[in-house]
Amino acid sequence: MNEFELIARLTESLETHSGTLAGPGDDCAVLDLGLLGRYVLFKTDSVVEGIHFTKETDPKQVGHKALARCLSDIAAMAGAPSHVLITLALPRDFDVSFIESIYEGIKSLAVRHGVSIVGGETTTNPERLLVSIAALGTVAKEKCLLRSGARAGDAIFVTGDLGGSLSGKHLDFEPRLKEARWLAEHFSIHAMMDISDGLAGDLRHILKASKVGAELMSDAIPVSRAAKLLAKAESSAKPPLLAALTDGEDFELLFTLASRDAVPLLDAWKSQFRGLRLSCIGKITAEAGLKIRDRKGVRELTATGYTHLAGAKANE
Amino acid sequence: MNEFELIARLTESLETHSGTLAGPGDDCAVLDLGLLGRYVLFKTDSVVEGIHFTKETDPKQVGHKALARCLSDIAAMAGAPSHVLITLALPRDFDVSFIESIYEGIKSLAVRHGVSIVGGETTTNPERLLVSIAALGTVAKEKCLLRSGARAGDAIFVTGDLGGSLSGKHLDFEPRLKEARWLAEHFSIHAMMDISDGLAGDLRHILKASKVGAELMSDAIPVSRAAKLLAKAESSAKPPLLAALTDGEDFELLFTLASRDAVPLLDAWKSQFRGLRLSCIGKITAEAGLKIRDRKGVRELTATGYTHLAGAKANE
Repeated sequence: MNEFELIARLTESLETHSGTLAGPGDDCAVLDLGLLGRYVLFKTDSVVEGIHFTKETDPKQVGHKALARCLSDIAAMAGAPSHVLITLALPRDFDVSFIESIYEGIKSLAVRHGVSIVGGETTTNPERLLVSIAALGTVAKEKCLLRSGARAGDAIFVTGDLGGSLSGKHLDFEPRLKEARWLAEHFSIHAMMDISDGLAGDLRHILKASKVGAELMSDAIPVSRAAKLLAKAESSAKPPLLAALTDGEDFELLFTLASRDAVPLLDAWKSQFRGLRLSCIGKITAEAGLKIRDRKGVRELTATGYTHLAGAKANE
Repeated sequence: MNEFELIARLTESLETHSGTLAGPGDDCAVLDLGLLGRYVLFKTDSVVEGIHFTKETDPKQVGHKALARCLSDIAAMAGAPSHVLITLALPRDFDVSFIESIYEGIKSLAVRHGVSIVGGETTTNPERLLVSIAALGTVAKEKCLLRSGARAGDAIFVTGDLGGSLSGKHLDFEPRLKEARWLAEHFSIHAMMDISDGLAGDLRHILKASKVGAELMSDAIPVSRAAKLLAKAESSAKPPLLAALTDGEDFELLFTLASRDAVPLLDAWKSQFRGLRLSCIGKITAEAGLKIRDRKGVRELTATGYTHLAGAKANE
């Protein structure tokens, strides 16, 4: 049983109350607390020593990553984060200066995005450090982007480059908050999420939620330099395209919009976000399933994104 | 360095934004998100295998306890909880039915208090299970109760019985949500918190936040039957009064109000909450410090409540 199957099983019998617009199964919970014109976004995310970072990782980067993952989920709904609570589960032999550096990493990212740290809890986790962040944000009701809005004929876009995040990006990525809000502000985006478990696997979440299929163009997938270098350095490494499709921790935005908006978007993006690539990687189809087109034709894409409990890889 | 000192050190340089009415240092963060007439309450709390429960604990009780702790903090502000997110950090050999039972325990308490479970995250914590809950609630602005409002001359009250929670209560206590809201609705409560680390230690938090002192009456402390039985059964156990003053995990309400309201409160309480004792245990003093009066006179109370990082006791 993988992470998604377990969560589905645990949450299948939950009652849905009015006021909950999206619960389990989207990037954040989307709540109507009665705020004029805005929904509240609510999300938690954890990083664990030995799984998401190692004892040797710069503690500032541990803190940065812990918060950035959470903020990336708020970005995925086109939201603005506002407040976070930090849970530190500390091993018995913890070093105070190490913990202070984790906080420095969290604070530095928080300040950059106007996020207030409004509480901290510590507990004991004898064998390893665990950092869990709970985040609140808000989003204008008409701008909130779910996974469920993709339509047949939509163009599929992704920001940045994919694959090979483990070479370093997973520790210092910047959550795509301003890009996501700009997208929601200027274009009619139909569905959006952040890529945390690999393009192929995460796109399947959009397809499932939207009850559609997709066809990707292999030449259009933005393969990162890191994925290419890894493939060159080690013969056992994934081929770069496979890495871009299945490596976790990209934390880029994946979204769809009407195909007629694709060219205007690419034009506007170029002048707005000079340093960040935006790629049209395929289209949404009425027929279910995920296919990829390359020079040899169209094939079913069987490689799925990494799921957390399926293995014990260091790149979870 | 204990938990409180560590948190103080980590959070001392945090910027306070407008909209944050209480941050680190109260039971919940209290946020003004722009909701008409209400503040948003935001809290996280975790339980860890081997520390807050054991491998032998009924998993439903593990789930109950994890959520009840969080709801007790929302009760402490006289708030109403609305939404929670559940983080499960699972050991490698986790048993699906065990996890489902944890969820059952959480759900059963959530339903009773009208709380929606709006998301679940799982991650890996190889050696032991950790359950972390993030909770949201709201409270009417004029009814929100902080730790900082105690005034010299106030009477100090506590609900229920104290001490010996480890005998069982820590796994099945009911968070005092309706009692707290009733108190805020019908009386002018000056300061309130929930007792999680022991009466003596937690009262000190109110005293510090309110810049006052207190004098307790030893005969008035409601010592639990469990604390008395423990003292009888084991000669090495704490004397019952000390247990009531310093044992953790009582999860009762501790509050102060003007002494002229003490008798009307006791009268009204008796007809409202028949099964639950309410005790006036002392008074707030202008002079700093925590004293206790018994037949021998008035003494400084040096026994402090248990703090999480100071030891590795099973009753954290």
